[in-house]
Amino acid sequence: MHSEEHEAQPAKAFERSDVMDKLVALCKRRGFIFPSSEIYGGINSCWDYGPLGVELKNNIKAWWWRSMTWHRDDIEGLDAAILMHPRVWEASGHVAGFSDPMVDCKLCKQRFRTDQVGEATCPRKPSVAPGTAGCPGELTEPRLFNLMFQTYIGPVEEEGARIYLRPETAQGSYVNFRNVQQPSRQKIPFGIAQIGKAFRNEISPGNFIFRSREFEQMEMQFFVKPDTAMEWFEHWREARFNWYLSLGIRPEHLRFHQHGPQELAHYARAAFDIEYQYPFGWRELEGIHNRGDFDLTQHQQFSGKDLSYFDEATRERFVPYIIETAVGVDRTLLTCLIDAYDEEPERVVLHLSPTLAPIKVAIFPLVKRDRMPEIAQRVTAMLRPHFKVFYDESGAIGRRYRRQDEIGTPYGVTVDSDTLVDNTVTLRERDSMAQERVSIERLVEKLRELLG
Amino acid sequence: MHSEEHEAQPAKAFERSDVMDKLVALCKRRGFIFPSSEIYGGINSCWDYGPLGVELKNNIKAWWWRSMTWHRDDIEGLDAAILMHPRVWEASGHVAGFSDPMVDCKLCKQRFRTDQVGEATCPRKPSVAPGTAGCPGELTEPRLFNLMFQTYIGPVEEEGARIYLRPETAQGSYVNFRNVQQPSRQKIPFGIAQIGKAFRNEISPGNFIFRSREFEQMEMQFFVKPDTAMEWFEHWREARFNWYLSLGIRPEHLRFHQHGPQELAHYARAAFDIEYQYPFGWRELEGIHNRGDFDLTQHQQFSGKDLSYFDEATRERFVPYIIETAVGVDRTLLTCLIDAYDEEPERVVLHLSPTLAPIKVAIFPLVKRDRMPEIAQRVTAMLRPHFKVFYDESGAIGRRYRRQDEIGTPYGVTVDSDTLVDNTVTLRERDSMAQERVSIERLVEKLRELLG
Repeated sequence: MHSEEHEAQPAKAFERSDVMDKLVALCKRRGFIFPSSEIYGGINSCWDYGPLGVELKNNIKAWWWRSMTWHRDDIEGLDAAILMHPRVWEASGHVAGFSDPMVDCKLCKQRFRTDQVGEATCPRKPSVAPGTAGCPGELTEPRLFNLMFQTYIGPVEEEGARIYLRPETAQGSYVNFRNVQQPSRQKIPFGIAQIGKAFRNEISPGNFIFRSREFEQMEMQFFVKPDTAMEWFEHWREARFNWYLSLGIRPEHLRFHQHGPQELAHYARAAFDIEYQYPFGWRELEGIHNRGDFDLTQHQQFSGKDLSYFDEATRERFVPYIIETAVGVDRTLLTCLIDAYDEEPERVVLHLSPTLAPIKVAIFPLVKRDRMPEIAQRVTAMLRPHFKVFYDESGAIGRRYRRQDEIGTPYGVTVDSDTLVDNTVTLRERDSMAQERVSIERLVEKLRELLG
Repeated sequence: MHSEEHEAQPAKAFERSDVMDKLVALCKRRGFIFPSSEIYGGINSCWDYGPLGVELKNNIKAWWWRSMTWHRDDIEGLDAAILMHPRVWEASGHVAGFSDPMVDCKLCKQRFRTDQVGEATCPRKPSVAPGTAGCPGELTEPRLFNLMFQTYIGPVEEEGARIYLRPETAQGSYVNFRNVQQPSRQKIPFGIAQIGKAFRNEISPGNFIFRSREFEQMEMQFFVKPDTAMEWFEHWREARFNWYLSLGIRPEHLRFHQHGPQELAHYARAAFDIEYQYPFGWRELEGIHNRGDFDLTQHQQFSGKDLSYFDEATRERFVPYIIETAVGVDRTLLTCLIDAYDEEPERVVLHLSPTLAPIKVAIFPLVKRDRMPEIAQRVTAMLRPHFKVFYDESGAIGRRYRRQDEIGTPYGVTVDSDTLVDNTVTLRERDSMAQERVSIERLVEKLRELLG
């Protein structure tokens, strides 16, 4: 069995606080994530996912989708349009309430969030804050600035044609409550799961993909009988926490944060965040909310359609309560990258769960001679219908292993001189770097077992 | 072996021209597709995908993604943002050219597409066309109306903050040419594949999901050496045609249409459509285009960044030509539904490819007694980790089979009185309705073989 060549690399202290900068660089260099429209200087807080990023993202979405809809019989999937009827956002409260107070400088025409103007600087006199003594301008009274992107549908830009890019997927599940419940013949309690893009014209996006203006959500709305709501709230609180553990997120980096009376949104009766310890502090990863009957009652009122439910078993009619679980795909992806990132003396490694890893198996000829490349390519072709694979023949084998460690590839397969003799290959595991020999004909089966 | 109960259903002639109305009704009734925001009266030409629709859509996307990126080593995936830098659309020609000429009536303020005003009716005098003798109004000169949805990013609605919802995913692949090529270490020829939403403020959307204002694209851009472009064009023309055959689309419903000199878009050097015979006529399903060096040359010029490629083998530097394959997810889904739809004397059946079918296996207890429901539920739990399954115990078994036929479920598993004796179940195939007995312990393996 060949040993790995360790290339000289200075062992360095690994500060968790540096992880963000390192990850941003790694993501760009290896093709996970780059700024949107980068050749034009980027567009603030929108991001493009490259070849590895899109695989990681798809794997996260697929695992959530399977956990929510395939592995249970009480949740149905939905994919509602981004463009919805504008009345939806009146009913939901977003037109009136989804806004930040802003002030304008009458002189320089700049706009500032009211609660941040103290930390901003006057563009004409950078030593002072806008509107304070010494600033030549004068600020307007605070005005509300809505966070929804607006546009117009149809050929005329008029009031009646104004629509919004949805700021959340949840409303699509509420307005389709009957459209889903009836054909699926679900009885309450049951849920509607949705994955899709949402848009918020955030004043202060930031922390890489943690908060961006275009993002993707994974939201599930669980419709329940009002007197069972807190029971189901507890169920989902626990189930969602465990979901992160199933992705291999370290439990010591996760905690619950219960919303106090001051923090609760207008629609919420109870709310817990699952928080993650990011390098920039504990922040919300996912929200679990008991929304009461707020949503269906509002849509009933605004649409004039009956959204109540008749329970055949108890002969009762009621407006269901909703327990919501809401998380961002991009934020989950960032969380997985941060949690997986590790530096060892001789390598950078992403300890990504094999379920999430963008590439499952990398295949290498030890050297570029003795038919090793041909055999390795045959092995690649054999594995390709089953797994996302990558073939690499360039550079020293140790370097090729490192390249895969850095992007989280859980298994490496090396064709070496023993292969020529007994038709076995070296199978290397990423985390332990343990190697074993496996016959080529057993390789698909073996990898299936390992990758689940 | 039990026989199927055939419920009385009048045998009727099956007119392909009626299929659209029947499909729209089936899609609503069974939870494939409904109008967006339906409780608010809908929003013109946007659609929501219900529990079965989202599975079908995900299966189409997954199959395209696997065919394009997993099964080949020369195509990389990408997921660019919907919101891009506005200069992208100047470089692409969309700001100046992606528009329809429109006329306004000065009296009633209605707007009409110039080429359709002859078929429209004057709102004040419905017997005449707008602007003709007898119409009280007068039309403006034709003006260009851009099909891109506009919005503003950041806190101020000003010219410099104006952005667009992308009308196609392709530009994301062009501006990221280097961002993808460098980390993936691909050499030309190679491609970039992308699936994502796009938006066009169409004046005349219609034919259900055939043309809608919000839709999803599957586009692949293949970057080649200029003198090999026509060779690759031919490769992709054939490969894409075969992809539809792999989905089970009937070859007699597919044909090529070559664009004549008058039809070619400004960027195209050669173009073929793959057309499908819809109930409303032959229409474009997919476009395959030789775009020459138009795209990279434009982005080079507008961004000031070098997008040429140096070929190590031939020591030549060139701006790559691009062969594009472009199709809509929604249109593919509609095509699959139309092609799969069939009426037989006793049932409606969707002959969907098992790869695409929303539910792979339905499980039934023959009757609700003798432990059959309990055993059928155990079988369901056993299959659930492997396939998208559905358990149904309500109604006559024949009726339950029909319900699954109508949504294209390829296999049914029935627990019956023989099961109690020998632990076998009835496995029923959708198209042939052939039944065979399979032991429960071999069921996962058997279904894996059948479903591929």
